[in-house]
Amino acid sequence: MKALWLENNQISMREIAQSNKPGEALIKIRKAGICSTDLELVKGYYPYKGILGHEFVGEVVSAPDASWVGQRVVGEINAVCGKCEACLNGRPTHCENRTVLGISNRDGVFAEFTSLPLENLYRVPDSVPDEQAVFVEPLAAALEIQQQMQIHPTDRVLLVGAGRLGQLIAQTLALTGCDLHVVARHAFQREILSARGIRTIAEENIQPQKWDMVVEATGSPDGFNLARRAVRPRGTMVLKSTYKGGMNVNFSSIVVDEINIIGSRCGPFEPALRLLEKREVDPGVLISDQYKLQDSLKAFERAAQAGVLKVLLEN
Amino acid sequence: MKALWLENNQISMREIAQSNKPGEALIKIRKAGICSTDLELVKGYYPYKGILGHEFVGEVVSAPDASWVGQRVVGEINAVCGKCEACLNGRPTHCENRTVLGISNRDGVFAEFTSLPLENLYRVPDSVPDEQAVFVEPLAAALEIQQQMQIHPTDRVLLVGAGRLGQLIAQTLALTGCDLHVVARHAFQREILSARGIRTIAEENIQPQKWDMVVEATGSPDGFNLARRAVRPRGTMVLKSTYKGGMNVNFSSIVVDEINIIGSRCGPFEPALRLLEKREVDPGVLISDQYKLQDSLKAFERAAQAGVLKVLLEN
Repeated sequence: MKALWLENNQISMREIAQSNKPGEALIKIRKAGICSTDLELVKGYYPYKGILGHEFVGEVVSAPDASWVGQRVVGEINAVCGKCEACLNGRPTHCENRTVLGISNRDGVFAEFTSLPLENLYRVPDSVPDEQAVFVEPLAAALEIQQQMQIHPTDRVLLVGAGRLGQLIAQTLALTGCDLHVVARHAFQREILSARGIRTIAEENIQPQKWDMVVEATGSPDGFNLARRAVRPRGTMVLKSTYKGGMNVNFSSIVVDEINIIGSRCGPFEPALRLLEKREVDPGVLISDQYKLQDSLKAFERAAQAGVLKVLLEN
Repeated sequence: MKALWLENNQISMREIAQSNKPGEALIKIRKAGICSTDLELVKGYYPYKGILGHEFVGEVVSAPDASWVGQRVVGEINAVCGKCEACLNGRPTHCENRTVLGISNRDGVFAEFTSLPLENLYRVPDSVPDEQAVFVEPLAAALEIQQQMQIHPTDRVLLVGAGRLGQLIAQTLALTGCDLHVVARHAFQREILSARGIRTIAEENIQPQKWDMVVEATGSPDGFNLARRAVRPRGTMVLKSTYKGGMNVNFSSIVVDEINIIGSRCGPFEPALRLLEKREVDPGVLISDQYKLQDSLKAFERAAQAGVLKVLLEN
């Protein structure tokens, strides 16, 4: 099958043997999305060799349980052991023996087919089109914030960053009724938010130490520092992006102000599907472009350009 | 009155006008404790000029409400406005206009007398002697951990550091029934803990990524890094000490592991007094030495020596 292969910071289209793992479902990819993590992996953020990609919607073509065959599905990216301490204590996304689709020791979805355990799959309701379903994984990551902590409807919440993930976080946070403002660098990002009635705020208008919760979704030290200045004493900083290398942070002020900093990664798929089915969110507004799988290299170039949100690949 | 004055990183005994602020209680100091923060202030951790000291037990000698006169009291160190957003939302220790006893814009307790608003004072039960009551402030700071988060009795909790504050944290954490282990650098620290049935653990025996909660009470980058290695994915790191300058931290791993980092400072006085009254804790085991107020300079030298826990000053 055709696949986008990453090796030594180089991506290339290759012909690869179809990855039909024993005991797992084989899934024909319908659409896949390019995520910032994919771009970072190409830059060498984490040493990974194999087929890239982890956001997808596909169709089961073979499975240990025949009732799955023909189903349209999305898939949780962490394939877990079910036996380690993390798995047995309700934290499977932190499984000590996990492989991660297109990220760690498991071939990904920028290919004609992929393979996942049945327990990772979720059926997509007929009313949710492929262009929406392909966003379930990042939408679940956005919802991880609400899974980790209580957001009061009266909270003043600042979101720093309105890129691929930031836009989805904005849409889901807005559903809580909280007093949400978003710092968006680019005019086109602000326009997408405004069209949904989500308020943006210019950096110079952000009151320091006044925000109950600040979500950092830029992955840059500047974004982190802005978030730190904005959060109130005893407030919470949610970190949704990874950062290159270390960051120098004044922890004394974090102790004195009793700030809570929490890292946030993969989230729950079922609520993401429920919100799509009820049309409470619309990730489709993020689609900048679509390419055929064989044009993946062009798609990656496009995804890396400024002003581009989501680029999809289709089979 | 005699007082220990800090100015330009120098402490000296001085004769100072008695600080009888209008509308506040005047308190004759009975005993006061030297805290690591005092030693740091002398080193210039934070620019403060005035009478040092914030841990005390004393006797009210005059007050706007005469019923307080003659009462033995301890005092909350944050004097607050009651009107700012922090005060009106139940976070008075983060008052935007606060002064802090012996730390920020308010003369402290290493003196014959000090002054505090009545609302800051708590009566000490007769059954609690001065040598215990003088520990209410740091004991309250230890209890701030339980005030900020739920500690499950089944939690595996690691405490890094068994100095002045660490010992009090160990005693209060042990009351939760959690599976507590303490990393104590010095043999005498381990002996104090063992005598109370609190388990210690050698650094080389700490399983990485296995602890539900890790409390960092050393204030050193080494302590922070040890705590980071020990905490499990989705676990909590509690920072109880301030750190000199910035620290370089890998926040990507904090995001991937979804670690929760929380700063923790001043705590509630009433539960500290209740635990002392019920003799559930015994801070008296921390007393290394006592000096007369006029010998404060010698007391500071002693407090800065290795192997010394609490040094008290008495009038």
